[in-house]
Amino acid sequence: MKVGVFDSGIGGLTVVKSLLEHQLFSEIIYFGDTARVPYGSKDKNTIIRYAIEAVEFFKNFELDMIIVACNTVSAYALEEMRESASVPVIGVVEAGVLATANALSNKEANVLIIGTKATVNSKAYENSLKKLSFTNLNAKATPLFVQLVEEEIYKGKILEATFEYYFEGLAHPEAVILGCTHFPLLSDALRNYFGEETLLIHSGDAIVEHLEREFSFAEKFKEPILKFFASENPDALRKIANEWLYEK
Amino acid sequence: MKVGVFDSGIGGLTVVKSLLEHQLFSEIIYFGDTARVPYGSKDKNTIIRYAIEAVEFFKNFELDMIIVACNTVSAYALEEMRESASVPVIGVVEAGVLATANALSNKEANVLIIGTKATVNSKAYENSLKKLSFTNLNAKATPLFVQLVEEEIYKGKILEATFEYYFEGLAHPEAVILGCTHFPLLSDALRNYFGEETLLIHSGDAIVEHLEREFSFAEKFKEPILKFFASENPDALRKIANEWLYEK
Repeated sequence: MKVGVFDSGIGGLTVVKSLLEHQLFSEIIYFGDTARVPYGSKDKNTIIRYAIEAVEFFKNFELDMIIVACNTVSAYALEEMRESASVPVIGVVEAGVLATANALSNKEANVLIIGTKATVNSKAYENSLKKLSFTNLNAKATPLFVQLVEEEIYKGKILEATFEYYFEGLAHPEAVILGCTHFPLLSDALRNYFGEETLLIHSGDAIVEHLEREFSFAEKFKEPILKFFASENPDALRKIANEWLYEK
Repeated sequence: MKVGVFDSGIGGLTVVKSLLEHQLFSEIIYFGDTARVPYGSKDKNTIIRYAIEAVEFFKNFELDMIIVACNTVSAYALEEMRESASVPVIGVVEAGVLATANALSNKEANVLIIGTKATVNSKAYENSLKKLSFTNLNAKATPLFVQLVEEEIYKGKILEATFEYYFEGLAHPEAVILGCTHFPLLSDALRNYFGEETLLIHSGDAIVEHLEREFSFAEKFKEPILKFFASENPDALRKIANEWLYEK
């Protein structure tokens, strides 16, 4: 099975990492819109326009499926992408919601959703979790985290001060939905801050869980074909892909 | 005189503020490329492409001059903009360099240049200052500052930790070039950190100084016509313009 993975930039590589670990696909075509990243502070209409352009790009390949690794796009443009595409389009938000519901039997558990401004403003996670009867939801836009990850700041004083700034006074969460593909790189620091018992919902793992439930994967692919595309500087994307996918 | 002011986003409003204070123009047309901001982490070729599109946009108006308020664009795309435009194109980098040279008689003074990654990598400030015989130059990319200003974090622990992260161990500067239009909003905090005697070079004031030296402004315009355009969400831009231009 061949899959296209779309993200606004490099963050979606954390989803590719999960796909590779589970050996689900024979070929993975990654497209990061690095010339226009970030989407998280942009308008709904702009996000939809860019997302449809990504669907058009993927039509150059004979894909079986498109995975939207970007939470912001999943929150705003999934329906529009589905209308434009002729293959299934799977988003990380839906997958993350189902993973949360599967992991927490107590519907009164405190769930904290963190993401970009656009993702949090969309209320996509909150609305879906409410439909599944969850009652204690907090959503917090944490846009500084994106820049910190881009700067490879995964620990230290700035990060601690930023955690305090965003999280002070919030109810202690039983689960934190990492509603932006950059955030899994802050997992260790978040676990330190919230404690080991707090569950972190990771988009990549949630997507794999969702795919394995909804589709049948008869074969395993140990060495899938990987192709990386970017709207600018594909070399930089490939370099980061090598670091993130094989080293960390 | 009518002027077009171009920036990748909202930051260029700090330049508009200086233009308004000095009442130089009868009409100011501002264009912020908010759908594709930020430019500071993007490639040279992408920046040039976007800058030329901005020149095309300004051709819709009968302008006498274009001011490039964005340091990143000034560093990479000024020549290309000049080739496309039929009016003078003035950039903040050139203006900032001249303002620094005018302010510092001692060519051995320590000058610190802060800006986006793209601006710092371009070495535009350094190369021009070296030509003017300055010898002690430090350039530091401080991309987190952009996000902090966007979050309206102008003081406090995160900012202090970020200052330490970027500036610890650097020679004490006699002047700091604020090489990104967002940074004037951190002036108070920077003055606190470096001390009152450190000179801060502000792009907007530098542009005014440069314009008044190079062009003749016969009239003052107390209530110029102001028009704001953005590639997405112009309402948000206008709201911020109101806050930044008239309140702070």
